[in-house]
Amino acid sequence: MSEQTIVSIQSQPRAMENITRQVADFVTQCGRASGVVHVFVQHTSCSLIITENADPDVRRDLETLAQRWAPDGDRAYRHDTEGDDDMAAHARSVLTSTSVTVPFANGRLLLGTWQGIYLWEHRTQRHMRTVVMTIL
Amino acid sequence: MSEQTIVSIQSQPRAMENITRQVADFVTQCGRASGVVHVFVQHTSCSLIITENADPDVRRDLETLAQRWAPDGDRAYRHDTEGDDDMAAHARSVLTSTSVTVPFANGRLLLGTWQGIYLWEHRTQRHMRTVVMTIL
Amino acid sequence: MSEQTIVSIQSQPRAMENITRQVADFVTQCGRASGVVHVFVQHTSCSLIITENADPDVRRDLETLAQRWAPDGDRAYRHDTEGDDDMAAHARSVLTSTSVTVPFANGRLLLGTWQGIYLWEHRTQRHMRTVVMTIL
Repeated sequence: MSEQTIVSIQSQPRAMENITRQVADFVTQCGRASGVVHVFVQHTSCSLIITENADPDVRRDLETLAQRWAPDGDRAYRHDTEGDDDMAAHARSVLTSTSVTVPFANGRLLLGTWQGIYLWEHRTQRHMRTVVMTIL
Repeated sequence: MSEQTIVSIQSQPRAMENITRQVADFVTQCGRASGVVHVFVQHTSCSLIITENADPDVRRDLETLAQRWAPDGDRAYRHDTEGDDDMAAHARSVLTSTSVTVPFANGRLLLGTWQGIYLWEHRTQRHMRTVVMTIL
Repeated sequence: MSEQTIVSIQSQPRAMENITRQVADFVTQCGRASGVVHVFVQHTSCSLIITENADPDVRRDLETLAQRWAPDGDRAYRHDTEGDDDMAAHARSVLTSTSVTVPFANGRLLLGTWQGIYLWEHRTQRHMRTVVMTIL
């Protein structure tokens, strides 16, 4: 099996998609006993995070906070080509991350019980996002 | 020697534990000449960071700022199952990181003079935290 | 060719240097077909980020926001040995990242069209910064 794959993820406006299953399946298919899987998103207005996977309110509260960290349509912004959420999305991307890395052993992700891997869409419209996964 | 290990770290409330020595020892024991060590924490309410290792006031000031970035008990939070610090801890985790990666050569970490690796506890109580280290 | 290299980057005060070319060239020179390149900065007052590479206003707006996330000379800071930007720089480093990782295939970085790799100087003076690149 290949040790690198590229997948498309359909995002929803300002929402988080749980991609833990896709990452876990890729690790299993590769057949390597142990290592680290690297997950990378090829965009600057969404991000990959690891956060609590049980209560949806956690993701909702993170969205609430993100809108404070980088307010939409702030008067100080010079970059607003694509609307009020444009610069805010870039800032939210920089504050979080373009990639996550997760160790695995015996073909299974070594995530904690409450950890999930999420693609967080920072734009106010849905997008098709490209994610590259590599086994290290 | 194994190229992956799991260790337990006792955290203190809202404090940072310097784990640089544990990471450096693991790299030395593995006997690999060069590469990168991946350090991952299996929790969503603490994080791993690299920051200044000389003046304890830096870590104290980071704690002060973190309480602004994600205030405890904010009225906007819906997730408060485990108390005022619950949602704040998840947010602080997302703003910082669940993993750090450090290059090494000749069996020694290529950290700068003032860089230390810390486990930052975001809850207001002490916890036993699980950290996975993998040599890449 | 070596799979690890150390380069010096001249930064400018509170500005971002585009280092995508240096990273891409290192990947090409190594001659490995696919993998991930790890880029690490040996300092706690600057950081490495991946952000939008087309409109310079994005970087300017990120700088504007960073000065809110960690204000210079805040009265709450205890650490101010090197001036008003000293603690702010450490905080900006922790909020962003000390390292970035980018997948590659066929000797070319798998960056999205609008992604660039930047060294972000958080001090108000220029510095010579040391960056370690490793092929994984």
